[in-house]
Amino acid sequence: MTARIGIITTSDRATAGVYDDLSGQAIIDTLRDYLSSPWEPVYKVIPDDRATIEATLKEMIDEQDCCLVVTTGGTGPALRDVTPEATEAVCDKMMPGFGELMRQVSLQYVPTAILSRQTAGIRGKALIINLPGKPKSIRECLDAVFPAVPYCIDLLEGPYLETDESVIKAFRPKLK
Amino acid sequence: MTARIGIITTSDRATAGVYDDLSGQAIIDTLRDYLSSPWEPVYKVIPDDRATIEATLKEMIDEQDCCLVVTTGGTGPALRDVTPEATEAVCDKMMPGFGELMRQVSLQYVPTAILSRQTAGIRGKALIINLPGKPKSIRECLDAVFPAVPYCIDLLEGPYLETDESVIKAFRPKLK
Amino acid sequence: MTARIGIITTSDRATAGVYDDLSGQAIIDTLRDYLSSPWEPVYKVIPDDRATIEATLKEMIDEQDCCLVVTTGGTGPALRDVTPEATEAVCDKMMPGFGELMRQVSLQYVPTAILSRQTAGIRGKALIINLPGKPKSIRECLDAVFPAVPYCIDLLEGPYLETDESVIKAFRPKLK
Repeated sequence: MTARIGIITTSDRATAGVYDDLSGQAIIDTLRDYLSSPWEPVYKVIPDDRATIEATLKEMIDEQDCCLVVTTGGTGPALRDVTPEATEAVCDKMMPGFGELMRQVSLQYVPTAILSRQTAGIRGKALIINLPGKPKSIRECLDAVFPAVPYCIDLLEGPYLETDESVIKAFRPKLK
Repeated sequence: MTARIGIITTSDRATAGVYDDLSGQAIIDTLRDYLSSPWEPVYKVIPDDRATIEATLKEMIDEQDCCLVVTTGGTGPALRDVTPEATEAVCDKMMPGFGELMRQVSLQYVPTAILSRQTAGIRGKALIINLPGKPKSIRECLDAVFPAVPYCIDLLEGPYLETDESVIKAFRPKLK
Repeated sequence: MTARIGIITTSDRATAGVYDDLSGQAIIDTLRDYLSSPWEPVYKVIPDDRATIEATLKEMIDEQDCCLVVTTGGTGPALRDVTPEATEAVCDKMMPGFGELMRQVSLQYVPTAILSRQTAGIRGKALIINLPGKPKSIRECLDAVFPAVPYCIDLLEGPYLETDESVIKAFRPKLK
């Protein structure tokens, strides 16, 4: 079973072609490094528009069967930064531990990490994780939270994700 | 004045008798270790059903005068994990610091600690604290947050809880 | 351009003159230490009443053009502690990283730091930050979060705040 993983870059400027989407590409590259089980990316670059973000999250999960969707961009305090709100609007339950840990890790690099409002949540059987927009924070955030992701997908009855343990080690608690 | 403390285990399987409720028992044992002032447990094992959890929280606080209710179970990402939502639904105000600290402490043991969505909040004059479902995380979570609990109950005008300081030390700031 | 910064003390007792507002004064003193660019305080002491807090936040931001409003008081678990709820009610988006970091820093001093429910958020082009009520926690909380504040105000298109770098260093990421 090939896992499908959504990657959404929300950026008015990347959508308009003002610059290349380095962050979405960094997510794909990182996941290629991590995963040893079969998967394919479902990738989209969209504007920082709340309705569009919500519709894209729904489509990737409800129609395209993604078990995981990773977003980048739109997590800051500016007027057009609405990714966390769009995420919360489509989720059945929120996972506050992801945002807490990513901000804590990013704080080791920059004090402005507290401005990132990224969160995570569950829609149906899929996990949605917001990452910040800066390409260089993609890897540091994913390194922090990804060890918990395969077990989370197990609990949601999704595909069994396996990682290359020389790169990152997925943790699955022993069954009682 | 004997303090009444609610302990709720939310677990479909423990309710059905598939296994014993070790986690609820661990909460009672831990509180027996901690508290030197008189208290009595009000204990219930219920299914992972949101309406039942909400009704049980209300009953323990509004009818049975519990000043503190500690839950275990139902904090994960799975479909039947709804304890944080039930808790938030019956609370007047939320206490985000409890979940943050418990996840941070649990992260020292397992990277999947970020999957635990446990929270805490206030209903009327009572504090509700969610703990994860695994028996061995009960003590590590309570050890982290309990030093702040007696002062919180003071602020809610509840009974004066005293602890065995050789086990855990309650902290009460000096009055200005 | 002179930046206007709101300082709100919410305290029934300070409003009634039972004691002096040391905390609001500590915020003003701390900001005087920090800022080297021109600014002026807009200062008010009000009761712990949710409608009054909401109205005061709106007035300071919408009418008096404050780019930043710092509150002190009303963040605890007691019945009259409603500052975080009033803040959330008037904000367009929440900034969870501020509360997380301030609680983490305060935890180094007192285990009851988890009882503080302080948050931060954005209303229009202004940032609102809640601080706890105790005078001595004002400086430790502001020291933790203020390095990120000038860049946040930049992103909201507000005045360019400059700090005395011998006291505190504002961090602005390099533009891509």
